Amino acid sequence: MSPKRFLYSITAGRKKEGIFCRTGEVFGEMRAYDIIDAKKRGAALSEKEIRFFVRGVADGSVSDAQIAAFCMAVLLRGMTDEECFVLTDAMARSGDIAPRPNFTGICADKHSTGGVSDSTTLVLVPVLCALGVRCAKYSGRGLGHTGGTLDKLESFPGFNVNLTAGQFERQVERIGGAVAGQTKSTVPADKRMYAVRDVTATVDSIPLIASSVMSKKLASFADVILLDVKYGDGAFMQSPAEAEKLARLMVSIGRKAGRKMCAAVTCMDAPLGDSIGCNAEVREAIEVLKGKKNALAELSVFHSEKLAALALGIPEAEARRRAEEAIASGAALKKLAEIVGAQGGDARAVYDESMLPLAGNCEILRAAGSGRLKISALALGKACCALGGGRQKEGDEIDHTVAILLKRRAGDFVREGETVAEVYFNREDNDALALARGAFETVQTYEPQPLVYSYIGEED
Amino acid sequence: MSPKRFLYSITAGRKKEGIFCRTGEVFGEMRAYDIIDAKKRGAALSEKEIRFFVRGVADGSVSDAQIAAFCMAVLLRGMTDEECFVLTDAMARSGDIAPRPNFTGICADKHSTGGVSDSTTLVLVPVLCALGVRCAKYSGRGLGHTGGTLDKLESFPGFNVNLTAGQFERQVERIGGAVAGQTKSTVPADKRMYAVRDVTATVDSIPLIASSVMSKKLASFADVILLDVKYGDGAFMQSPAEAEKLARLMVSIGRKAGRKMCAAVTCMDAPLGDSIGCNAEVREAIEVLKGKKNALAELSVFHSEKLAALALGIPEAEARRRAEEAIASGAALKKLAEIVGAQGGDARAVYDESMLPLAGNCEILRAAGSGRLKISALALGKACCALGGGRQKEGDEIDHTVAILLKRRAGDFVREGETVAEVYFNREDNDALALARGAFETVQTYEPQPLVYSYIGEED
Repeated sequence: MSPKRFLYSITAGRKKEGIFCRTGEVFGEMRAYDIIDAKKRGAALSEKEIRFFVRGVADGSVSDAQIAAFCMAVLLRGMTDEECFVLTDAMARSGDIAPRPNFTGICADKHSTGGVSDSTTLVLVPVLCALGVRCAKYSGRGLGHTGGTLDKLESFPGFNVNLTAGQFERQVERIGGAVAGQTKSTVPADKRMYAVRDVTATVDSIPLIASSVMSKKLASFADVILLDVKYGDGAFMQSPAEAEKLARLMVSIGRKAGRKMCAAVTCMDAPLGDSIGCNAEVREAIEVLKGKKNALAELSVFHSEKLAALALGIPEAEARRRAEEAIASGAALKKLAEIVGAQGGDARAVYDESMLPLAGNCEILRAAGSGRLKISALALGKACCALGGGRQKEGDEIDHTVAILLKRRAGDFVREGETVAEVYFNREDNDALALARGAFETVQTYEPQPLVYSYIGEED
Repeated sequence: MSPKRFLYSITAGRKKEGIFCRTGEVFGEMRAYDIIDAKKRGAALSEKEIRFFVRGVADGSVSDAQIAAFCMAVLLRGMTDEECFVLTDAMARSGDIAPRPNFTGICADKHSTGGVSDSTTLVLVPVLCALGVRCAKYSGRGLGHTGGTLDKLESFPGFNVNLTAGQFERQVERIGGAVAGQTKSTVPADKRMYAVRDVTATVDSIPLIASSVMSKKLASFADVILLDVKYGDGAFMQSPAEAEKLARLMVSIGRKAGRKMCAAVTCMDAPLGDSIGCNAEVREAIEVLKGKKNALAELSVFHSEKLAALALGIPEAEARRRAEEAIASGAALKKLAEIVGAQGGDARAVYDESMLPLAGNCEILRAAGSGRLKISALALGKACCALGGGRQKEGDEIDHTVAILLKRRAGDFVREGETVAEVYFNREDNDALALARGAFETVQTYEPQPLVYSYIGEED
């Protein structure tokens, strides 16, 4: 070893003649410190370094402070696509990985980056199952202003979202679909990293979001994955350009890992459907499965078409025809009841709205002026949450009966005094109600954005 | 409150129409999260926000992860001078502040950003005291490759560096000078923040270094402060431009707080003196006080001149004459013995080198070729540390007898085989000895940088 290299080794991360030298590269002895230091200086990390860091996150040898510094450095300095892929893969491998079961038929999954009044999963899964596409759908819980599919499913009395990997797999094989939460032993590195990001203002980083989302997907066994990346008022991404960047990155990660990927960039300025709150959203999904037409129906069919076309290898027009037919024939609704029943839920609720009650108090919100209606998805999501219909922090109990029902859509022309929404609640909270009222504005001119901004298909 | 403002409030830190709105500004309810978020986006923090954050660091309500994310955001996004002043002031106020005692006479202090073979404090303090300038000198311990004055003073058997604020003040009043460590209740916010920075690669940020150094100075009562900001191989700052930036920032902070400030930017490519290791450095300081001329003597007299001129309001040439006279007359040496005695140390060591022994094993390092000698301060500092003469981590025991004595200076022409240094050690460590050997190079041409790069005086 030359003295020069020896000298380098002890400078651990300090700039020397334009070279960033890290101990690990010289001595094979790595330190989280040097990895943070390199990222802070804008260097691209090696595969070995990223895997070392993630292992330390999972086994606890890397401290919370080091995770926070690393995430802030990534947020401000960025990551190459290659670094992000390795980070994702390393996180996926930090816990249990579900091997592809050997049953036949393509398995599909869909992931949304989180929105308000978005119960497409409850429509999409039964539609796809009815078309013969297996759905191995892992979902999450709501946090902050966004709703979560698992919470909504628990509106069905008795519904069990905690399936073991074996139960989940057997249900997908037997009836074609299952919707559950990932187990605690899945992607532990992401769980720890996310908990730190959540309190250190390091959530809104494209490579960190991409690796967090995709690590969970790579740990599951779906063959075809559709990503719904939201932008706008009620989404993490503010602009469609940002959302598309995130979508493309996640698609590339999934493809590198051998999955069939597609993604839609969709608008989340106003709530997607007409209902916010667990029971109300389940009711609405059921209505859509019974033939109701609205934006929720439109997006659910869009996603079903794309996934069915990819999974079955049929033209999109044919896939759409079949999806619409599955709804019209009632086959999809029947499938929903079957899934609910298979997971211990009371399937009668699918046919009996009174089993999905709304809260006893109701405030009617009326337009303060005449004009075009603007609705803030974020404010309504927060209001529902503040009324007890969502979760301020992990572990909070949810009131499934809290609901906000929209009577008019964003962009509609409304007259002063006209009813725009109804708010259902058990616990009166003036701040929360003020938030709901403040979500509505009437303006001179307002044209809502199209629902789908762009679609990244198999060929893109 | 307009709905618009209400809506803003719930977006807590999210960008809305180009405005970064933080909860605290609207509702008077602050969160560390929003402060980190604002800094991450490059915003200047308000005084209230910075004081809130620092209070949280001191009282534990801000987590280590949040401190780490904040420090990384500051490192990459910077701080305005105003923010940095507030941060410094808030940190100083996080613990006990020593009020200016009511004795007469100007009190001086000096702070170095850390170097190798730099025992100027041991020369400067007795010289200034001999000139009638009081020295209220708070010092630190060595960490990593840099030495610490407190460790060196403990080379005097019995020397007590842990004075109470009262003991410290009374000694400064009675004999004109004291050198001690700051107490645990001084600047607790900095202590916690520094511990986090140390493991998260967030030390090398100019505003964070400036606030850390100056918060400790603002918590003490010196009237006149000289900062010695090092640059080069063995220093935190690599370039003189960076070092000067840091120096100017610290000078401006001190002046805002009402202190008389000056600063020197000095080179730390090669060790300052000819000795590294506690006992050896104390020996060398004593030799300088007995009249030895070398770079250590030169810098000590330079600092003494600047501080004496400022403190006594005399011309610099006159101050230098008096400083040189204090050494030549033996008055400064006598003062050192007095201080050592006052703090419980055995002052006989000042006159008896055998009470400051060097370790029993010696390796002689010889030039590997002929040419100009280059010496790495960093490598020698690390080597001394690895041999047990310094501290790898807080709390490590130090072997005071470990020493590296330079027989030739950087820039000297040496012939192959000539002795360039002697290494004294008790515990043989081949890696450490290899480090020491690797610190020396002979090259065709090499001109060391001037000792003092620039000086920021009272008028600058």
